[in-house]
Amino acid sequence: MTGLLDTISEPADVRALTHDQVHQLAEEVRAALVDTVHCIGGGGHLASNLGVVELSIALHRMFDSPRDKITWDVSHQIYVHKMLTGRRERMNTIRQYGGLSGFADRTESEHDAFGAGHAGTSISAALGMAVARDLNGDDYHVVAVIGDGAMTSGMALEAMNHAGHLRSDIIVILNDNAMSISPNVGALSRNVNKLRIDPLYRNAKREIGSMVEHLPLGRQAWDAAKRVKASVRDLLVPASFWEQFGFEYYGPIDGHDIDELEATLGRIKKVRTKPVLLHILTEKGHGVPEAAADPIKSHSGTYWMKKPADPGQPAPLPTYSQVFAQATQELIESDPKVVAVTAAMLEGTGLAPVHAKHPDRVFDVAISEQHGVTFAAGLATQGIRPIVAIYSTFLQRGFDSVVHDVVVQDLPVVFAMDRAGFVGDDGKTHQGFIDTSFMRCLPNMVVSAPKDERELRDLLYTGVHHDGPFSLRYPRGTGPGAPTDLPMREIPIGRAEVLREGPDITLIGFGATVMEAVKAADILEERGIMATVVNGRFAKPLDEDLILRLARTTGGILTAEENVRAGGFGEAVLALLADHGLADTMLGNLTMPDAIVDHGPQPVFRALYQLDAAGIAARAVEALEARHGEAASGEPALVRA
Amino acid sequence: MTGLLDTISEPADVRALTHDQVHQLAEEVRAALVDTVHCIGGGGHLASNLGVVELSIALHRMFDSPRDKITWDVSHQIYVHKMLTGRRERMNTIRQYGGLSGFADRTESEHDAFGAGHAGTSISAALGMAVARDLNGDDYHVVAVIGDGAMTSGMALEAMNHAGHLRSDIIVILNDNAMSISPNVGALSRNVNKLRIDPLYRNAKREIGSMVEHLPLGRQAWDAAKRVKASVRDLLVPASFWEQFGFEYYGPIDGHDIDELEATLGRIKKVRTKPVLLHILTEKGHGVPEAAADPIKSHSGTYWMKKPADPGQPAPLPTYSQVFAQATQELIESDPKVVAVTAAMLEGTGLAPVHAKHPDRVFDVAISEQHGVTFAAGLATQGIRPIVAIYSTFLQRGFDSVVHDVVVQDLPVVFAMDRAGFVGDDGKTHQGFIDTSFMRCLPNMVVSAPKDERELRDLLYTGVHHDGPFSLRYPRGTGPGAPTDLPMREIPIGRAEVLREGPDITLIGFGATVMEAVKAADILEERGIMATVVNGRFAKPLDEDLILRLARTTGGILTAEENVRAGGFGEAVLALLADHGLADTMLGNLTMPDAIVDHGPQPVFRALYQLDAAGIAARAVEALEARHGEAASGEPALVRA
Repeated sequence: MTGLLDTISEPADVRALTHDQVHQLAEEVRAALVDTVHCIGGGGHLASNLGVVELSIALHRMFDSPRDKITWDVSHQIYVHKMLTGRRERMNTIRQYGGLSGFADRTESEHDAFGAGHAGTSISAALGMAVARDLNGDDYHVVAVIGDGAMTSGMALEAMNHAGHLRSDIIVILNDNAMSISPNVGALSRNVNKLRIDPLYRNAKREIGSMVEHLPLGRQAWDAAKRVKASVRDLLVPASFWEQFGFEYYGPIDGHDIDELEATLGRIKKVRTKPVLLHILTEKGHGVPEAAADPIKSHSGTYWMKKPADPGQPAPLPTYSQVFAQATQELIESDPKVVAVTAAMLEGTGLAPVHAKHPDRVFDVAISEQHGVTFAAGLATQGIRPIVAIYSTFLQRGFDSVVHDVVVQDLPVVFAMDRAGFVGDDGKTHQGFIDTSFMRCLPNMVVSAPKDERELRDLLYTGVHHDGPFSLRYPRGTGPGAPTDLPMREIPIGRAEVLREGPDITLIGFGATVMEAVKAADILEERGIMATVVNGRFAKPLDEDLILRLARTTGGILTAEENVRAGGFGEAVLALLADHGLADTMLGNLTMPDAIVDHGPQPVFRALYQLDAAGIAARAVEALEARHGEAASGEPALVRA
Repeated sequence: MTGLLDTISEPADVRALTHDQVHQLAEEVRAALVDTVHCIGGGGHLASNLGVVELSIALHRMFDSPRDKITWDVSHQIYVHKMLTGRRERMNTIRQYGGLSGFADRTESEHDAFGAGHAGTSISAALGMAVARDLNGDDYHVVAVIGDGAMTSGMALEAMNHAGHLRSDIIVILNDNAMSISPNVGALSRNVNKLRIDPLYRNAKREIGSMVEHLPLGRQAWDAAKRVKASVRDLLVPASFWEQFGFEYYGPIDGHDIDELEATLGRIKKVRTKPVLLHILTEKGHGVPEAAADPIKSHSGTYWMKKPADPGQPAPLPTYSQVFAQATQELIESDPKVVAVTAAMLEGTGLAPVHAKHPDRVFDVAISEQHGVTFAAGLATQGIRPIVAIYSTFLQRGFDSVVHDVVVQDLPVVFAMDRAGFVGDDGKTHQGFIDTSFMRCLPNMVVSAPKDERELRDLLYTGVHHDGPFSLRYPRGTGPGAPTDLPMREIPIGRAEVLREGPDITLIGFGATVMEAVKAADILEERGIMATVVNGRFAKPLDEDLILRLARTTGGILTAEENVRAGGFGEAVLALLADHGLADTMLGNLTMPDAIVDHGPQPVFRALYQLDAAGIAARAVEALEARHGEAASGEPALVRA
C-alpha cells in the first residue's frame, strides 16, 4: 500500500480519489490515528476518532469545506478531519504545547467552522450559520456531527426544536455509537438502542441485504427492496421522535460503509427545504480491536497502550479525582444520606468504581449539568446530602441551577469541582479559570479549595456536614502526596491555616498554589526573606481575623491562585483589607491571566504566569523591592498584578 | 353563592367538599383571582392562574400536600395553590413588599415543595424528591406541573430523559395552553398543537362525546367509546414522543373538567412503577373573557385593566426595554447584518413590535437561553451581528454558552441584559444581582452599563460595531428621561465620563446609580462637600487613566452599583487602585448585599442598601468623616462596605 494519505493536503484531494483509493485511504487514516496517539503518549481520543474515519472521509467527498461548514460536536473526534484538511504533518503535535489543538479551533484552520470542547453545541452553531447564510444570500451546506450522548444534552434538543421551527436547511448527523464517554444514560438512549439489539430488525436487515445482494435485481426491484428495508426500520426505530422536531429522518445506516454514507449524503444534500437528521451507527475504536474492546478507557487513549508499571518504582500518587472518589465512597458507606451525582463523567471524576459498588447512590444524569444540579437540589429538600461532581468548566453549564435552585433556596448541596485551574492538554475550552469568581459572587455559598489530598477529604467531609451550599475546587492531576487514609475531619468554615511564620511578607495560596507558596518561602529564605505562608482554604468566607492580623504584623500580603483575578480570591482579600484601611499592605495578586489560555502541560503555564514556587518567590522579591523603593523615594510604587 | 372559599384553610378542606361544592369553589376562586390581581394593581400573572383553577383544585383533592410534593414549574401559576393552602387571607399582599411571594417559596409554606421563577426546573426537582423518597424508604407522590413552553427548555427534556432511565415514580402534568408567554416557538410545540387544530380530531371528539352523552350506555359500551376516543387520539397525538422518554402517557384531557381531572389523576396515582406524563389542555385566562382574549398582555395582568391615560398628564417615560427595542429596530433597519435574539421574551424585552415588523431579523428561540447564545455565536461566525436580549437573571442559564462559544472564540455578540439590579416585584429568583461579576471575569468581554436612555442607545450602537463580545446591563423600568430620538453614537470603549467636578470626593456610579450619584452630589453640596461625579460606564475595561487621576486629585473614591460586591465594578476599581499604590484612596463600595433579596418596589431596596441619592450622600459623608477622624488620630478607620 503506497502512502495515499501523504498526497492529501486539502479536501479536494479526497474528492479526487477513486472508489478503491477511498477504502485504502480509510485504512491509512486508521493506522495514522494509532500512530498519532502513540506518538503523543496516548493522550488523544483514539476510539472516538476510529469511529468516524469513514464518516470524515465521506463528508469531505460529498461536501466542499470550508465553503460548506462542518461543525463537530465536542470535537474530540476531529483528528481525521484535521488530517484531511492540511494538518496531516502536524498531527504529532496534537495536544502538545504550541501544537495543534485536540479540538476544533477557528484560529487553527478555516476548515474548523466552530470550536468546541463541551458537548451539545454543534446544532445551535450550525443553525446560526444556516440562518446567517440565508440572511446573507449565500448558498452552502451546513452539517453538524453529534454523538448520541451529546444529543441528550438539553441545549442540543433546544436547537433541534428551533431548527424544526425555522425549517432551516441544515444536516444533523447523529453519530450513534451507543456511548458518550461512559455508556449512555437515559431513556432516549435506551429506546434508540433497542434497534441494535432487536433480533427482528437484525434478522430482517440481514435477510433483505442478502436478498438484494444475491438476486439479479433491476432498478425497480432494488427500490422495492429498499422500501421493505425502510418499513422494517420504521417499525422499530423512533424516526417519529426526530420527526416531531420537524426533521426529515434518514437511517439508520452503517457508519463504516463509505459507499452507503456517500450515497445517503448525496441524497440528503438535495433536500434543502427542511432540516435533515441522518442517523448512522458506528463503533468506537472500529478497526482496532484493542480500542474497540474497551472504548471507555481508550476514550482518552492512555490505558490500553500504557506500559506496565516498573516494579522498581514507587507506586504512583493517586490523582485528586481518585482521592475524591475514595472519600466519596467512604462518606456514602458511613452515612445513608450521602449520594453523588455526575454528568456523564463517571470515569473522569473517579466515581466509576464507587458507582459500580453503590449503583443506587451514585447517579449519572448524562450530559445534563443543569438537570444534575437541580436534581441534587430536589434531593437536598428531602434530607439527602448530594455531592455534585462536575468539572469546573462543565459546571458553567449548570450555573443557573446553582444560583436559582441551590443558592436562592440555601440548600445543602456540595459542588466538587475537579479540573480547577490550568487544565493541561485539553486547552482553552476546558480551563477551570473562573469558578472561584462565579461561586464567590453567590450569597450563602462556601467557596473552598484544599491544599492537598488530605484536605480534599476533610473539606468534602465538612461540606457534607454543612447546612447550605458548599463548593470545593481541586486541580487536574496529582497533589503533593498527603496521606489519604486518615479519618476525615471537619474544618471550621472560614478558617485558614498558617503553615510557616516569618515577618517579611505573607504569601497566601488558595488550593494548588499553597504548597507552591511553601516552596517559595524556602527560596525566599535563601535570599534572607522570611515569609509567612497561609493556606487560604476559604475564599468565602475569608478568615478575616487572621488575614487582618498578618496584614498588620508582616511586611505585606501576596496572594496566589489558579483563577482569573476578577472576582477571585485575591480580590476578596483586597476588599477585606480595604474595608479595614489596610489596602496598602496588598503587594499583589498572582492569578491566571485575563486571556484565553491554550493547551499544554500545567507546569508550563504555572511557570509562565508565576504560579509555581519560583514565580511566587520572584514576585515576592519584586514586590518587596518596589515597596522598599517606594519607602525610600516617598512615592507609591507600581505593583501591577 | 355563599363563601365556600372562606372555609378553606388547608387542603383537607378541599378534599371534604362535595361534587357540587367543588364546582362552586372553582367559580369563587376565579372571582378571587380577578379580585386579587385588581387589588395589587394588575401586576400578577392572571391569565396563567385562571388556566389552572380546576387543576389546582383537583390536585389538592387527589393528593395530600405537604406529604405529597407538588412542584410548580416557573410557579407564576401558583396563586390558586396558595389560596387553598392557608394563604387565602394574605393574597392581597402578593408581590408586595413584606407580603406573599408571587412564586413558590419554601420559606413561605410547607406546601411549596420547591421554589421557582425560571422555567424548566420542576421535573428535575421532582425527580430529586422521588429518588430521595425511595432512598429514605418513604411513600408519597411527587407531581410536577409544567407548561408546554417550559417543557421545550433543555433542562426539562434532560430531566425527562433521566426520569425515564430511572423509571422513577413521578407524575408530570404537561399543562398545554399552546403558549408560554409569547406564543410558543418550536417544532415540538407545532406538532403537539396539531391536535388542537386538526378538524379530524375535533370532529371525532365531538361526535364521540355526543354519542356517549346521548345514548343510554352501559359500562361496557362506555369503555368501548373511551377506547375509540383513545385510538383517535393516538392517531394524532405524539404520545410516542413522550413514550420515547420512558414515560407512560395519558391524555390529552380537558384541563377545565374537574371530574375528568380527578378521575384521571386517581388512575395514574396507581401506576407507581414508572413515570407518568398527563397531558392536559387548558386555556389561559379561562372563564374571564377579557383575560382569555389577550393572554399575552394579561400574563402580567396590567394591560387590560389599566385605566385610560389622563389627557392632562405628560406622556409617560418609555421603559428601558422600550428604548432598547426602538434602538434595536433602528440598527436592524440601517444595517443588514444586525439581528436580535430573544428566548421566549418578545414582550418582556420590548422586541415584540420589532419582531412584528422584521420577523426574519428577530429570532425568538423559545425558553432556550443556552441554544440562543450559541445560535448567536454561529450567526457571528458568518458576519452577522447578533444582539442577544436576555434578562440578566435568565442569562445565568446561558452562561456556559457565553463562555465556551462566544468568549473563547472572541466572537462579536452583544448581550443586552435587561432587569439588571433590583428587579422589584418578581423577587429573589429574578434579581439581576451578579451579571457584572459573571461577565467581568471573562477575557475579551466588554462590560458596560448606560447611565440613561440615550446612553443605552449609544452603547448598543457601540456594541454592534465592536469586534468581540460586548455586554450592557440596564435596569427594569424607566430611566431618568434622556432623549431617545438622537442619532446613536459610538462611545470609545473603556472611556468613562466626568459629569461634575469637585475636589472633596469622587463618586463613581455604574448604570442605574450614576444619576443617583449626581443627585447625591447636590445633597453633598448643601453640606459644603464638593464632589466629582463619574459615569463609570465600563466595568471592563476600566477608564484607568481617569480613575487614577481622580484618586490622586480628589479626596477619595466611592463607588456605587446594583450588583453584589464580589467581582463587581467596585472591586475592579479597587484592584486598579491597588496596582498603583492608591488603594487607600478607596472610601468604599456601595453594592447590593451578599444576601438573597426579596420582592418589593425597587426604591425600597435602593434606599435600604444606600444605592439611591440619599444613601450615596450619607455614605460619602460617613466615609469622609471616618477618613478625617483617621487623619486626626493617625489610626486607620473602619470604612466597611
